[in-house]
Amino acid sequence: MNNHLEQLIKFLEENELDLAYLSDPTNIFYYTGFLADPHERTLAFFVDRSGRNFLFTPALEVSSAHDAGFSGEVYGYLDEEDPYTKISEHLARLDDKFNRVGIEKSQLTVSRFEQLKRILPQTAQFLDLTSAIESQRLIKTEDEIAKMIAAGSEADYAFEIAQKYCRPGITEVELVNEIESALRKKGVLHVSFDTLVQAGKMAANPHGEPTTNQVADHDLVLFDLGTVHDNYVSDATRTFAVGSIDDRQRDIYEVCLEAQLAAMDFAKPGVTASQLDKVARNIISEHGYGEYFNHRLGHGLGISVHEFPSIMAGNDLVLTPGMCFSIEPGIYIPGFAGVRIEDSVYVTENGVEPFTHSTKELVTL
Amino acid sequence: MNNHLEQLIKFLEENELDLAYLSDPTNIFYYTGFLADPHERTLAFFVDRSGRNFLFTPALEVSSAHDAGFSGEVYGYLDEEDPYTKISEHLARLDDKFNRVGIEKSQLTVSRFEQLKRILPQTAQFLDLTSAIESQRLIKTEDEIAKMIAAGSEADYAFEIAQKYCRPGITEVELVNEIESALRKKGVLHVSFDTLVQAGKMAANPHGEPTTNQVADHDLVLFDLGTVHDNYVSDATRTFAVGSIDDRQRDIYEVCLEAQLAAMDFAKPGVTASQLDKVARNIISEHGYGEYFNHRLGHGLGISVHEFPSIMAGNDLVLTPGMCFSIEPGIYIPGFAGVRIEDSVYVTENGVEPFTHSTKELVTL
Repeated sequence: MNNHLEQLIKFLEENELDLAYLSDPTNIFYYTGFLADPHERTLAFFVDRSGRNFLFTPALEVSSAHDAGFSGEVYGYLDEEDPYTKISEHLARLDDKFNRVGIEKSQLTVSRFEQLKRILPQTAQFLDLTSAIESQRLIKTEDEIAKMIAAGSEADYAFEIAQKYCRPGITEVELVNEIESALRKKGVLHVSFDTLVQAGKMAANPHGEPTTNQVADHDLVLFDLGTVHDNYVSDATRTFAVGSIDDRQRDIYEVCLEAQLAAMDFAKPGVTASQLDKVARNIISEHGYGEYFNHRLGHGLGISVHEFPSIMAGNDLVLTPGMCFSIEPGIYIPGFAGVRIEDSVYVTENGVEPFTHSTKELVTL
Repeated sequence: MNNHLEQLIKFLEENELDLAYLSDPTNIFYYTGFLADPHERTLAFFVDRSGRNFLFTPALEVSSAHDAGFSGEVYGYLDEEDPYTKISEHLARLDDKFNRVGIEKSQLTVSRFEQLKRILPQTAQFLDLTSAIESQRLIKTEDEIAKMIAAGSEADYAFEIAQKYCRPGITEVELVNEIESALRKKGVLHVSFDTLVQAGKMAANPHGEPTTNQVADHDLVLFDLGTVHDNYVSDATRTFAVGSIDDRQRDIYEVCLEAQLAAMDFAKPGVTASQLDKVARNIISEHGYGEYFNHRLGHGLGISVHEFPSIMAGNDLVLTPGMCFSIEPGIYIPGFAGVRIEDSVYVTENGVEPFTHSTKELVTL
């Protein structure tokens, strides 16, 4: 049994929960080592207070679960079978009564919850495991951080490729192509999200996507990308200049960089997420660009590219060693240009270490 | 107001529902034309029985919603604001009381549902909209089918590329690279799922993924792929032979093809999903490969690559013009080889038409 699962069982004991039902694929991976995308099919992991547990998967996935190294029981079901009826039979073998059951309220759908209530009619209380699991996943082990360091190196390699191909005339989509091709040739099978390349004015939309817009001389070009290494992700952003840029472009770059470096420097155990956001935001606001930094400073990452914690105003979470998150201030001026500079980091005993090491000084191509 | 939304409002009237709350991004796209991936943020669409409606999005997305052509009200919220408190204020402007409220039970999370109940304390009943929305999305309009035909042509182009590069020595991942690069060069910005290439024994795992395994002479090589065209998807599979293959490989190919063609021929209005599955499955079983066809015959597709209906035993849904789904029998013999042949189709007045037209006769490379 892995250490993650032992901690969950300990939580069940301490909180007098009789059973935990997990349905989120990334949570299931965290506790079993088996990652699958069940689409609309049912994937579930059950563990009781005494540690007895089983995975329940589509029949197709049973052998994959074993291959992934999960050593417990794995039960499959066929498309034409009712999954919850089968789950009920398997649960009956664990125990005849579960009084207090933990579920992931932020992931579980209402219809699956209704199914669960149907097969557990004697359960008196359903409690939310969300924050317990988030808190556990929040603190990465050395092993998890090692995988994220490897993913960060792959992102650094992607920025090398970006610099190599980013020239006037190439389109944003062609740049995506060059980056993802080079990554695959290096053995990187998955990016952690669709590689984002935005040139010139396009970069002013922080949630846009690559188009056939061509890179032009005097553009700032934004690259936001990440990879998946052994099921753990990287996420980083660099913005490069193509040829000479004007004073206002340079100014937003320098202000964004100052904010990013200040936050990197300020981040350490004891600081809150809210305070960290404020450090970066104040610098951008003091330079008159506050309205153009319209998103939080960062988000957690690990198995998923967006997970707990959120680095933003109002979050009083205190940073602690092992937390991993992005620090990504941006300045987006509609119709003009956009800049974002992002490293993802892990918290150490006395500061943070980035997963990516590509230079953040302005690179002119 | 678009026709899809008019139908939903009519459903609310007929079923005396006062309000619908949608949270699934693809459903929201279907009714508003605005597609976004909110990650863990809140995205919502509310429409009442008299047709008054609003979109509620992260502040970052408000302008994108307008750009997507949504002409109603769009309200944003900032990361540090409580979304449901803001939603409550906006709802209060529509009405002071919603007695019967429709939700998507198969998509809505328990925690969002609890938030909704908190801000609608006077609501007496929450009813499930899932099957009403599924039924509506199930029948594609001409406009939707036109987009899927375009996506099908892109998949056909991908198979041309696959045939061009599939030779002994190239790896599965390199083949993915060639296919996705060629698609991007042709302006295809998104694939509908990670392109799957499996050579030789690897193809015996119907849910595997591409590796650095090299294509070898005498391999059957399976390509399962699709694209996104104007937010609608394609999904198709072809299996090619590299050099000469042995009798058993040829037999599983021919049996799989016979099953696929028989199902294509049998599919028409009036037939049930279950009957259609059985036609293909019987052929494979009669040839002794029944145990190696361990998944349903097909799945619906449209905005998503897996949606209603499921073509499988036990589903008595009667096929009707406008339904779109895959027909994809497969035979997977562990340690030996795998074959799958898949077209996605739309139901016409008297049969089905495939979105893909690449030959299904055995292609030897």
